[in-house]
Amino acid sequence: MGENAIRPLFDRVLIKREEPKETVKGGIVIPDTAQEKPLEGIVEAVGQGKRNEDGDGFLTPVVKKGDRVLIGKYSGTEIKVLDDEYVIVREDDILAILNR
Amino acid sequence: MGENAIRPLFDRVLIKREEPKETVKGGIVIPDTAQEKPLEGIVEAVGQGKRNEDGDGFLTPVVKKGDRVLIGKYSGTEIKVLDDEYVIVREDDILAILNR
Amino acid sequence: MGENAIRPLFDRVLIKREEPKETVKGGIVIPDTAQEKPLEGIVEAVGQGKRNEDGDGFLTPVVKKGDRVLIGKYSGTEIKVLDDEYVIVREDDILAILNR
Amino acid sequence: MGENAIRPLFDRVLIKREEPKETVKGGIVIPDTAQEKPLEGIVEAVGQGKRNEDGDGFLTPVVKKGDRVLIGKYSGTEIKVLDDEYVIVREDDILAILNR
Amino acid sequence: MGENAIRPLFDRVLIKREEPKETVKGGIVIPDTAQEKPLEGIVEAVGQGKRNEDGDGFLTPVVKKGDRVLIGKYSGTEIKVLDDEYVIVREDDILAILNR
Amino acid sequence: MGENAIRPLFDRVLIKREEPKETVKGGIVIPDTAQEKPLEGIVEAVGQGKRNEDGDGFLTPVVKKGDRVLIGKYSGTEIKVLDDEYVIVREDDILAILNR
Amino acid sequence: MGENAIRPLFDRVLIKREEPKETVKGGIVIPDTAQEKPLEGIVEAVGQGKRNEDGDGFLTPVVKKGDRVLIGKYSGTEIKVLDDEYVIVREDDILAILNR
Repeated sequence: MGENAIRPLFDRVLIKREEPKETVKGGIVIPDTAQEKPLEGIVEAVGQGKRNEDGDGFLTPVVKKGDRVLIGKYSGTEIKVLDDEYVIVREDDILAILNR
Repeated sequence: MGENAIRPLFDRVLIKREEPKETVKGGIVIPDTAQEKPLEGIVEAVGQGKRNEDGDGFLTPVVKKGDRVLIGKYSGTEIKVLDDEYVIVREDDILAILNR
Repeated sequence: MGENAIRPLFDRVLIKREEPKETVKGGIVIPDTAQEKPLEGIVEAVGQGKRNEDGDGFLTPVVKKGDRVLIGKYSGTEIKVLDDEYVIVREDDILAILNR
Repeated sequence: MGENAIRPLFDRVLIKREEPKETVKGGIVIPDTAQEKPLEGIVEAVGQGKRNEDGDGFLTPVVKKGDRVLIGKYSGTEIKVLDDEYVIVREDDILAILNR
Repeated sequence: MGENAIRPLFDRVLIKREEPKETVKGGIVIPDTAQEKPLEGIVEAVGQGKRNEDGDGFLTPVVKKGDRVLIGKYSGTEIKVLDDEYVIVREDDILAILNR
Repeated sequence: MGENAIRPLFDRVLIKREEPKETVKGGIVIPDTAQEKPLEGIVEAVGQGKRNEDGDGFLTPVVKKGDRVLIGKYSGTEIKVLDDEYVIVREDDILAILNR
Repeated sequence: MGENAIRPLFDRVLIKREEPKETVKGGIVIPDTAQEKPLEGIVEAVGQGKRNEDGDGFLTPVVKKGDRVLIGKYSGTEIKVLDDEYVIVREDDILAILNR
């Protein structure tokens, strides 16, 4: 089973963990002294969105498959498919999208 | 009494616990070091849905009988019918639907 | 005074505790290791329902007198009428209705 | 000053504590092992009701002066007028109305 | 500066503490064993009311200057003007109005 | 940089701390035994107001620059400009406006 | 990768930490005894805004790129790009905008 087979529910997002890439132009480095260390990853799958207040509609998610994102270290639930590490988080736990 | 005789209330879902299947194409493996380990199961019954804000309507659930789902380990209430283990969770505690 | 004399308020439900019946076709068995053990009972009386958001209306309860239900062990308030044990819970604390 | 001189505010209710009456037909007995013991009392005064969401209206209370009610033991604030014990609770803390 | 110079904000109420008056007709006596002891006082000033949900309006307060009220002992903030003790509480922390 | 250069955000208010003035006519004295001691100050700047529920509007603040106010001792964040002490609080943490 | 490559999500704001500048005209000095010490920084990027209640719209943020702001010390998540320290906070955690 590949990671495509995992469809997150509602506002949850499946993220493949990646080591932050330090390039010549610089990269994001998480200081050891940081109180809450964020982590990098690639969005692999996005749920249908959070239910809206009125009825059976859903709030369209903002992040998309392929986005590189920053998340808080203690956000979400870790799973492992083959040798890759994934984490399932709620969209609102994503701190930022990284453009490279 | 079979498990069909259990009708969950509102947004609750009855899930039959299953061991994750590791196949040749790979499977979901929960790392021992994961802070919150998810579990697999098959949806056996779904409630009428959560009450909507305005009145006596219900928000149609997204998961369906037969769906294979991932849930957080400490979600819901465990029950046992004959020799099978079940757990009753709220739909929003389901992390993802697994397509195989 | 019989149990009919107790009218629960709003979304509360009066439930007569019963031991789970194990039948030939099987019954619900609560594992000792379960973190939150559910209990069985029969609905004896139902309140007028929870107030709706707008005004003086009430949200019609879903459970009815005579329903056999599963509730969480630590839900509600226990009372005793004669030799029978009852518990008063909010409707949303009922996990499922059992059809036999 | 009599108890009629106390007008509860909003959704609060003034209740005169009474010992549960055990009659031939049986009475409510609170088991010593109960986690949260309810108490009996007579409603002496009812506030104007909780404010509604929109404006200056109030949600008409359901209980009335003279109702015999069950309340949780640790609900509300105890006061004493002459030799009688009273408790002021919010209406939603009343578990049930007792018909005798 | 007198107490008239203190204008409470929003749904706050300025209350001058008074010892409960025990009269021939009886008075409110707070039992020492009460878990949460209420206190008596006279309303000296009332705020403009709590903001309503929609906009810049305020919900007209129910209590008025001169009302004798019961409040929970641990409600609000104590201040002292000259030799008099006052407490500033939110209106919803007032348990009841006392008519004498 | 003077204190005028600090523009509080949303419903926050910048307050310059002042010692309570005890005058012949009396002043507010905070008793040492008070559980939550309030403090005096002068409003120096007010934010645009809290966001309303519907959209991009703001709820006009009630306090104005120059108002002498009472606030709870542990409310807000302390800052120091030159030798003056300031505190930034949310408007709802202001207990009362003092007229002198 | 420069800091421009980081796009905060929803109501989050990317802030580059700066030491408070003490000038001849005075500066903001955080007292060591302050319970919650605020920090200075420059807004580098702003998210699309918080979702509104009704649907897929967003509440336009108030702060803009280039604003010098005060934030609480323990707000948000710290990240480091090259040798610069950044913090990602929700807009409502920004205490004030500083005009120089």
